[in-house]
This record gives sequence, structure tokens and C-alpha cells, in this order.
Amino acid sequence: MSDLPASLQHILAPRRVAILGASDGPSRIGGRPIHYMKEAGFEGDILPVNPNRETVQGLTAYPTVSDVPGEIDFALVALPAAGVAEAVRASAAKGAKACLIFSSGFAEVGEEGERLQAELTAISRETGVRVIGPNCLGLFNPSAGFYPTFSSSVDGNFPTPGGLAIVTQSGAFGSHLFYTANQKGIGIRTWISTGNESDVDVSELIGHLAEDPGTKVILAYVEGAKDGRRLIASLEKARAARKPVLFFKVGRSEVGAEAARSHTAALAGADAVYDGVLRQYGAYRGSTVEELLDVAYAAQTGVYPTGKRIGLVTISGGAGVMMADAAEDAGLDVAPMPEEAQTTLKELLPFAAVRNPVDITAQVLNNLDLVPQFLQAMYREGGYDAMVAFFTMTASSPMIADTMRDRILKGLEGYEDRLTALSIVGGPEALKRYTDAGLLNYEDPVRAIRAFAALMGFGRSFAGQEGRMAVAVPQMAPLPSGPLGEKEAKEILAKAGLPVVEDRLATTAAEAEAAVRAFGRPCALKIASPDILHKTDAGGVRLNVAAEGAADAFDAIMAAAKAYDASARLDGVLVSPMAGEGVETILGVQRDPVFGPVVMLGLGGIHVEVLKDVTFRAAPFDMEEARAMIADLRARAIFDGVRGAPPADVEALAEAAHRLSLFGAAHADTVESVDLNPVRVMARGEGVLALDALIVRR
Amino acid sequence: MSDLPASLQHILAPRRVAILGASDGPSRIGGRPIHYMKEAGFEGDILPVNPNRETVQGLTAYPTVSDVPGEIDFALVALPAAGVAEAVRASAAKGAKACLIFSSGFAEVGEEGERLQAELTAISRETGVRVIGPNCLGLFNPSAGFYPTFSSSVDGNFPTPGGLAIVTQSGAFGSHLFYTANQKGIGIRTWISTGNESDVDVSELIGHLAEDPGTKVILAYVEGAKDGRRLIASLEKARAARKPVLFFKVGRSEVGAEAARSHTAALAGADAVYDGVLRQYGAYRGSTVEELLDVAYAAQTGVYPTGKRIGLVTISGGAGVMMADAAEDAGLDVAPMPEEAQTTLKELLPFAAVRNPVDITAQVLNNLDLVPQFLQAMYREGGYDAMVAFFTMTASSPMIADTMRDRILKGLEGYEDRLTALSIVGGPEALKRYTDAGLLNYEDPVRAIRAFAALMGFGRSFAGQEGRMAVAVPQMAPLPSGPLGEKEAKEILAKAGLPVVEDRLATTAAEAEAAVRAFGRPCALKIASPDILHKTDAGGVRLNVAAEGAADAFDAIMAAAKAYDASARLDGVLVSPMAGEGVETILGVQRDPVFGPVVMLGLGGIHVEVLKDVTFRAAPFDMEEARAMIADLRARAIFDGVRGAPPADVEALAEAAHRLSLFGAAHADTVESVDLNPVRVMARGEGVLALDALIVRR
Repeated sequence: MSDLPASLQHILAPRRVAILGASDGPSRIGGRPIHYMKEAGFEGDILPVNPNRETVQGLTAYPTVSDVPGEIDFALVALPAAGVAEAVRASAAKGAKACLIFSSGFAEVGEEGERLQAELTAISRETGVRVIGPNCLGLFNPSAGFYPTFSSSVDGNFPTPGGLAIVTQSGAFGSHLFYTANQKGIGIRTWISTGNESDVDVSELIGHLAEDPGTKVILAYVEGAKDGRRLIASLEKARAARKPVLFFKVGRSEVGAEAARSHTAALAGADAVYDGVLRQYGAYRGSTVEELLDVAYAAQTGVYPTGKRIGLVTISGGAGVMMADAAEDAGLDVAPMPEEAQTTLKELLPFAAVRNPVDITAQVLNNLDLVPQFLQAMYREGGYDAMVAFFTMTASSPMIADTMRDRILKGLEGYEDRLTALSIVGGPEALKRYTDAGLLNYEDPVRAIRAFAALMGFGRSFAGQEGRMAVAVPQMAPLPSGPLGEKEAKEILAKAGLPVVEDRLATTAAEAEAAVRAFGRPCALKIASPDILHKTDAGGVRLNVAAEGAADAFDAIMAAAKAYDASARLDGVLVSPMAGEGVETILGVQRDPVFGPVVMLGLGGIHVEVLKDVTFRAAPFDMEEARAMIADLRARAIFDGVRGAPPADVEALAEAAHRLSLFGAAHADTVESVDLNPVRVMARGEGVLALDALIVRR
Repeated sequence: MSDLPASLQHILAPRRVAILGASDGPSRIGGRPIHYMKEAGFEGDILPVNPNRETVQGLTAYPTVSDVPGEIDFALVALPAAGVAEAVRASAAKGAKACLIFSSGFAEVGEEGERLQAELTAISRETGVRVIGPNCLGLFNPSAGFYPTFSSSVDGNFPTPGGLAIVTQSGAFGSHLFYTANQKGIGIRTWISTGNESDVDVSELIGHLAEDPGTKVILAYVEGAKDGRRLIASLEKARAARKPVLFFKVGRSEVGAEAARSHTAALAGADAVYDGVLRQYGAYRGSTVEELLDVAYAAQTGVYPTGKRIGLVTISGGAGVMMADAAEDAGLDVAPMPEEAQTTLKELLPFAAVRNPVDITAQVLNNLDLVPQFLQAMYREGGYDAMVAFFTMTASSPMIADTMRDRILKGLEGYEDRLTALSIVGGPEALKRYTDAGLLNYEDPVRAIRAFAALMGFGRSFAGQEGRMAVAVPQMAPLPSGPLGEKEAKEILAKAGLPVVEDRLATTAAEAEAAVRAFGRPCALKIASPDILHKTDAGGVRLNVAAEGAADAFDAIMAAAKAYDASARLDGVLVSPMAGEGVETILGVQRDPVFGPVVMLGLGGIHVEVLKDVTFRAAPFDMEEARAMIADLRARAIFDGVRGAPPADVEALAEAAHRLSLFGAAHADTVESVDLNPVRVMARGEGVLALDALIVRR
């Protein structure tokens, strides 16, 4: 395993492996790893440690790890929780670079366990030994025959080596993922369960696997990342290395999130934040095993088109329509074949539909030579990035199956750089002869289309990202120490380049009237008080006030505010000109417990309240990412102008989101949240304007 | 097949079957049916007709169908298009009750073909012979060994008889459905491809199959129904007979709809209308083969719970969370176990999570007796309608697989009336021993949950529907013969019980002012003209007009209308009081080419324009269906009251939709469309008010 990066060498391919708590019983927790490694032909030294036996499964056993002659690289600890810390210390003293701990009884069982786990973390820091677990199911590396795991999923079922690396916070679920992937014929690079993550966590491992030439695809099962910024850094590494990260994070729904909390000690950030951040850093989030393994299966090709054009071939018109539906749902471009190519294909087969989907019809069964002609034309003339061909049960006929396969292969010659899948059904042996020839096959063509859409997403994410994520955060003055009312918040944000509405503070009725006159148009009057956050509730807001009504409005607002909270400090009334027509949006910064400052963008009014049409990104981010946020909104078409409204200035909105992300990043340590609500998006060229602002300190 | 209803007897189980165009070659179109029927042991008489041969595949052949001795029941026609009409006539004369026509060259190829096809329809009407096809792949009935089909899907692959009936407009796609269902072990009752539907169509067949005791589930593949009302009647029959209808209709997306148009001559109604009507009549619409067959597979149990409570059992916490997410997405109720039951289960296994999802943890592998104890408790104490249990690869271990199965069966004893599925993986033989024991198994538990949600939907649809759909349409006066301006439309609709805003027609400025004074509050003034449909575009609308401004507004509106269209008849200005605050909705009736009058309900403003948040139902329908329409809206939470607004009067909105459906049904022959836009929904108890109305005649 000399091709492993140094960061994984000691974890995945050690030479001398001590088993603390080694058992003679090959099905016992302390016995299985030894049994598996012997079966799998592990070439390193297996060094059982057991004070009560001279041999374990035929190997010499040592009473303690210190008694093992020479140094060790790796210690597997299968001892009761109370003895684990001492075992890790002793292993580290013996030269171990990594300790893997099966034992449970740590953070998952309460305070005493947390203390024990903190000790493991401390030992790791102190000695430099890397700790995997505790409370984990172990790991394995098929090409080295290294199986320090007690998962029964590998029992009699060692996987074929391949490019899929699985990292998982759940041993049982991770085993299920491995087993199912293996059944689907996806080769495995490594499988690592991280358990309680006292030291090594899934986030770190993703980064190391990104640097491993043998890893082609990374599948991560995560219940809650401990350090969001570490996860982000690793996702960036993976993207730079063109390694797709397939991310399985459960707990989307309310009941799911509750179940997740009761199941895991991991601190879960808001699920919608995960969604946004994973999109931002190019990971693919799936919600079923089938969906993720469908993508992993297609990713074995290593083909990640940057375009979205898909060609659909069928021998049943109905299936063509179904595939077109699915492709449009998945955001792909079912572009028509060029006119001339359509003419040529019609000449080949007059009954064919030649636009896209291209329907060769059942006629093809009478003339299989049409298959390569049509397939070649799809790529040569149609220029598609990908193609899905529905050939239904043509592989079920012993007379046709192999000829059909050869014609298909001929049709794809020269286009190995494209992404092609079949949907063909038949007996398992016939199908195996298809997949053995390197053809992807999905029983349901819709699954192929969805998986291809994911790969195309990776293609776009891999392309042209260089340097984009290294967004420089400018120096900004620290927040002032005084109170942060609306006026102060607006001033601070204006300095950060955010467009906020002008205002004047009026401390008397006469000043209020003068201010409205000075602005020369109707104004909004709002109570100015650092103690009143909900100004409308306090009766502290009057809109559309003309100069002649300003004095009365001032008095009414001050009186209402006093009645609302007699102890509140009242600085006066803030006068701002009424803004023009536009689309209402909201922008904000929140401190996520996992990812730190994140920016939220949403459509205002009922869109945010009823439809939850909001999206998140980790701060900071560039203009392109800000544009992607706008594209995330389900009701984004509102920006195009509805009911006669002009198209809105989305570019200015993106600019505001980008600048707010810089502000959030610059003040990550001192700001708890920022709210710009509403932010009105005016007609194109006229910018955006935040009509209110609130900054809450940490 | 004595259990077939009379309507299907002649189609699916004839005794004397003539094959016109019979071929000696067992793989030729005219030869395959004979080959299949001989292989399958068809017990009726196979009577080949071929003027050039004395025998066909060893059977005596006759020069013409008239030469066949005695009567025939069924004629299969595999002749060139030009000779088909004559063959059908001759077969009818010979006593055939049904003719199945393979031949192509009819409506699918243009005008001449359409003429030929119309002739077939006419012969069928004239003689009473039922015609299936032309341009179809035939049908089969496995339990009778009756295979009048040239689909290669049954070649060497006769299906196991069972309860799934497949009816399909596409032969190729239908074959794919059959083949895939068969591979999944779903038994087949019958398979019928209807081709061009010159006579028998999918809609009619659904109704007949509803009456067939041997049919348990109906799967229909439809590109476009020819007669929506016939489809509705059949769906009603199926619902009354508690037979789930799984409906596959492609062409959802724009590109899909276009592909469907180019592929089929069927006149496709609006796809969103299909969605609403299928929901209304309790059919389940799927969009992938996998999804529909997952439901068909579960439907083999015949269990259709009326509740939505699902128990989730897992041996991996993460999978439990994933299942909870999926169940919530599917609208199911992941209700917790009762407190006492939780305590009992905790005593059995202290590490278990006992709320729901219930996590028995991997501990269960050390004590399989926990399995029946937990499963029994889920149903006995939890009272769930359904349960999905994730046991991952416990079936992969030869030591555990069979014991595990027996423990599971013990755990389910006495609860055969509930819907239970496993998600367990392992080798094919081990899994077969699970399914042979009657256990449902899904590789991905999320698929089980989605399928169960569909079955629960059927359960609710089957329950308490009796008589609901027989909505009586009251007699209504015919539309008046004069012009139908806003005022007339409102009067007509008010008579039909729809709440429309009051108005007065002002023909002079003075009358307008008097009208506003009479209403006693600000009013809307709108041009009254049968020739101006887009009043706002014509400058014909002024809102919030006070009495003092009414005369000016009148003059301005009249002037603008004249300028907009000098030839328009101007009746004056309609004055209506401004309505109170409320939620804007739209209601309308449209004449769908397939289903006739359908009612549309949507949220107003950008919801309908940008988000297309609308839903349809075929008219007429009752209050319960009207409430279901409101529940369909994605942004329905807006009716609960947002931004301090009170809850809206949804009951009054349902009443309006219901009454509009009666109006639409009563005027089905004379009304092209009705638009009530906007319909303002006031606070609960205050009703709804249509602020504008338009009726367009056919």
C-alpha cells in the first residue's frame, strides 16, 4: 500500500499490529479481527495481547503490550472502558502511531464516560498517537488484507478492492452501506468507522482520502460534524483533487432530527445549513442508500461532464417520455438532435422518432446494426455530454443478448469520455457480460438519469473552482463598544459596503418634520431605542408619513414606546425616506454551532414564513456563490418581474450577500447575528436597499 | 377461468381462437402466439388461418376464417392493414366476440390510416365484436395459458399467475413493466396492450378488472386517456371494489409532453388535471417503474390501513433516523411508543432507543429472542398501522439467517392484518426463504416506507367513500343569451350560490358618486363593457375611490376605455365596495379536452404566476373533496394566518369551490371557462368574496 498518503499509512497499512484483548474465539469481538486478517492474508505481524493465554488463534500471545518484542505500529483495543486509557498510553510508549478502540462506555453513556473519553483525547494530543473511536466497529483496507474490525459484514464476504472509500460515524449503518455497495459490484478502497471521534473524525478523513491516489469516490455517513470548518477544508481538498464526496446526513425532518439527537452525542448544526454548505463546497447530499450508491456506481467511470446535455435513446416511446420527464426534473438539458442529423436518422429508419428522446422502436430487433449507427450519431452529431439508452429486455433473449452487447459497444467506440448508461433487463449471467464489458446498467433508467445529474454537478463543481474559495476577508474595525440600535447597525453595515436606507435621528417633533421636509418625500418614522427590538409591536413605526403629519407621528411613536416599556432608553425617532417598489428579501448572518458564521438569503414576507424559501452558505463567499444562492430560491422567478414589474436587480442582491458574508467572517468572534429585513430589490440597475438592520453581539 | 366477469371472458378466456395470418415460424409475428399457446398448454382450440399452408406449427390451417368449421370466439389478426377490416367482418360473421389486431398502419401513420381505423370502430359498433388494437402487442392470461401476443417478454418466461393486472397503451413499455414485475416475483393476473384503442381502451378495461375477483391490483400505463369520464367511472368501480389502481402517465415535463405528443396520437389533457383527477378518484400516480412496482409488491398483502401511524424498528440508530426522515416526508405519523411500553422495553434492553424509531441495537445479534419481544410490543403496545424493520445484513450470516427469520415470524404472529416490511440483505437463497414465508422485504427501507404510504392512501380512499362521488347536480337555468360582462357573470354566479362582491352600474359621473356614497366606504370603479376583458390594461380600473373622487374617476375610466378600444360597447362603470383584508385566491372552471369541466383552485398573486401553486378536480365534487383541494396547496399554511393575520375562512373557500363545481357540471355543454379572480378569503366566519368574475361561453 505504498501509494497511501502518509496521513493514512499508519491507520490503513501498518506493519506490526497489536490486538489488546485478543480472543481465541474467531467470532468474539477480540477474536474476529485476527480471524479476518489471517483469512485475508494480511502480510504484517499480528501480535495478540492477552494475559491469560500463551497463544491466540495459533499465534503467540503476550501478557501486556509492553511485552511485545520490538516496536508496534498500530494497536487495536478491545478492553473494558476502564482499562483503555492505560492501554493507549502503553501502546504509544511502544511506538504505536494509531490506536483503534472498539470499547464502548465513553461519551455515549454519560458524564463518567465523557471524562474517560476526554482523557483519550488528551493522551492523543500529548503523545501524538492517533485515536480512532472509541465505540467504533473498526476499519478495513481490502488490498492490504487489513481487517481490524468486528463488523460481521465482511464475514465470508471480503470485498473486491476498488475506488470507493466509505467513512462513517455509524458502524452498523456504515456496514450496511459497504455490504450493499459490494453486492452491487462496487470495489472498495477502504471502510472506516469513527465511533465517538475522540480524535480522528470523518471530516479529517475526507481530507486524507482526497490525497489518496487509490480513492476515486468518497462516501461519508455523518450524523453531526464536530468541526464544520475542518469539514469544509476537507471538501475543498476533495474538490481540488476531483474526488466526488457523497454525503449521507440523516435528521432532515423534525422527528428525524429528534431521533438523531437521542441517538448520537454529536452536536448537529441546523440541517438547512448543511444543505447550503454541502452545495457550496460541491458535495452531493443524498437521502437514500440506493440513490447514493447509484451515484457511486456511475462515478466508477471517473467521467464528470461539465455540461448538462443528455441524449435519450429508447426502443419504447413511452419510456422515452418518462426519461425526458426525469431529465427535466433533474435539471438536465434534453436538447434536440441537429436538423441534418434528424434527417439522416429518418432515412435509416423512417418510423424512428429522431428529435430526443430518439426512439429506434422495436424495429431495431430486426436489424441490430441500427444500434451502433444510432448511438454513434447521438454523440457525433448530437454532441451530448451523456446518454441513457433504454433497451428493456433485449438482454433476456439468449439469441440477441450478446450480439446486442457487441453492437452497443461498437456504438460507443471513441466516446469513452462520455457518460453512457444502459437500462436493460435480463438474466443475471447475461447482464454480467454487459457490466464485465465496462457498460453501466440500471434497471430503472430514471435512476441512471438522476445519478448522471449528480455526476454532471460534480463536473461543474470541479471546473473553474481554482482559487474561488479563497475569499480574502478585509480588515474591518471592531464593533464599537456602545449600544447597537438600528442607527448604529446601519452605520456599521454601510461602512462594510452594504446599501442601507438613509436616516436622520429626530429628538423632537419639529426635528422630525424638518427631516421629512429635507428628504422631500414621504418617510418611515421608527422609534430609536437600543432596548426595543420589536418596533412594530411597540407601536413604534409609522409608514408613509408626509411632512405635515410628521410632528404628530413623532409624538404618537414616543408615547406608544413609553407605554410599551417605561424603562427603555428612547433616543428619539429615526426618519427614513420610503423606498421605491421592489421585491422583498431578507439577508442575515447567524452563528451556526458547527460551521460558524453563515449567511442566510430568503424571499421576504410569507415566502420565508410559510414556504421557508431560504438558503444558507458559510461565510465568506464570492459573487459567484452569492448568485448560486439566488438560484437556489424556489420562487426565484419573482425576480424576473411578475404582474408587470420590471426585472429586479439580482446582481446588486448578490453583491449585498457577498459583502455581508465578508462582514460576518470578519466579525466571526464578536457577532452572534445580523438581520437585514427587509432588503428591497429594486429594478435592474437601481440596486437594493436594506430598510432595517439589527446586529446582535455574542 | 370461470371466475372472470362476463366483460372479460371473451377477451381473456375464449375457447376457439382463430389466428388470421398464422405463420409456421415460431418467432414470426403470426407464429409466436401459436408457439406460446402450445408451450403454455392453452386448452382451447387454436385455429390457424393461412391460405398458403395446410398446416401451421403442426395444426390444421384453413384458407380463410370462413372455412374454419363451426364458430369461433376470438380472432387474432396479423395481416397487412388493408385486409384487416374485411378480416374483422368475417370473424364477426363467424361468431367471434373479440378481435385482437397486431397490424400497424392505422391512426399512427396519418390520414389514410385514420380512415382505416375509423372503419374498425364502425364495424365494432355495428356487429358488437370487441376490437383490441390495432397496432398492439396483444395480451395474455397466464392461468389459462392464453398468449395471443408477439411480445418477446414471455419467451421462455411465462409468468407465475397472481393478482397483478397490467393494462398498457404502449406494448414495449408494458412488456418492460411485466418483465420487471415478474422478476420481482409479483404474480400476474393478465397483461393487455391496447395499441391505438379503436374500440377497447385502458379506461374501460380498468372497470372490468375492478369486477374480476382474481385481480388484486391494477397497473395502468397511459399516455393519454381518450375519454376522461369513462376513466373516472372505472376508477370509481375500482375504489368501490377496494382494488388499488397504480397509474403511470408520462409527459409531466415540458419536454416530456412534447415527446409524448410526437409519440402518440392520443389527445393528452393537461398533466396537472390528471394529477388532480387521479387524486380525486383515489388512484396512485407514480413516475418510475421501480416506485410503482414497489407499491404493487406491497399490495400483494391486500392490507390497506386507514391510519398513518408507522412503527420503525432498527438495529442501527442512523438507519432509524433515515427512516424517520422518509416517513415524515411521506406524510406518515412516526408516533412515539406509549410511556409504559418504553419503560418495559428499556428493561428488556437498557441500551435500546425505545421511542420510535425503536433501536434494538446490534445487541440483538447476541440474543435473537429480543426480536419477537420487540416486534410484538410495537403492534400490541404501539398499535401502529404498519411497521418497517431494518435488520441490515442479518440474513447474510448462514448461522443467523434462518433463526432470525423464525424469530421475526414469531414477532408478527397475530398481526397479519398489519402492514409489515423488512429491510434485510443477504444472499439470494437466504432472502428467498424470507419471502417464501410471506415476508415483504425491501433492500432500501425508504422504498418500503414510500410504498406503505401509498397503501395507506388507498386505505383512506377505500374507507368512507360510499356515495360521496355521486354528487347531485342541481338544475340550473341556462345561460342568458345576451352579452356576459362582469355584472352579468356575477349575477349568474350569485344565483348559483357563489359569494360575489356587490356592485352598482353607474352610467354617469353623478351616479358613480351616488353609488359610492350609498356603499358608505371607499369603492373600486371598473369599466363595464362586454368587449373589454382586460380592464386594467385598458386603464379601466380605479381602486379605493372615495365619494368625493368618484365623479373624476368615472370620467377618467370612460375616457381611457374609449381610447383603448373605440369600437367597444361601454355600459358605464361598475362600482363595488372595497373588500376587507384577506388571503387572495383564484377559482375557475376550465373545459379539459379529456375530463370536461374541471375546477381550478390556487393561491393568488405570485403564487399562481411564479409558483404554479394550483390544483384541479373534475366537476362536480363534494365539500370533502373541496377541502382536499385546499390541503393540496403547498402554501396552505398561509390560511393559518401569517404576520399577525387571523386564520382564514377555509371552510367558506371550500364551499365556494364545491358550488363552482356544481355550476361547472350543470353548464358543461355551454361554458368554456369561468374565472373568479381574485377570490378574497376573509377571517374565519367572515366568508369569501369574489371580487371579479368572467364567464366565457363555448
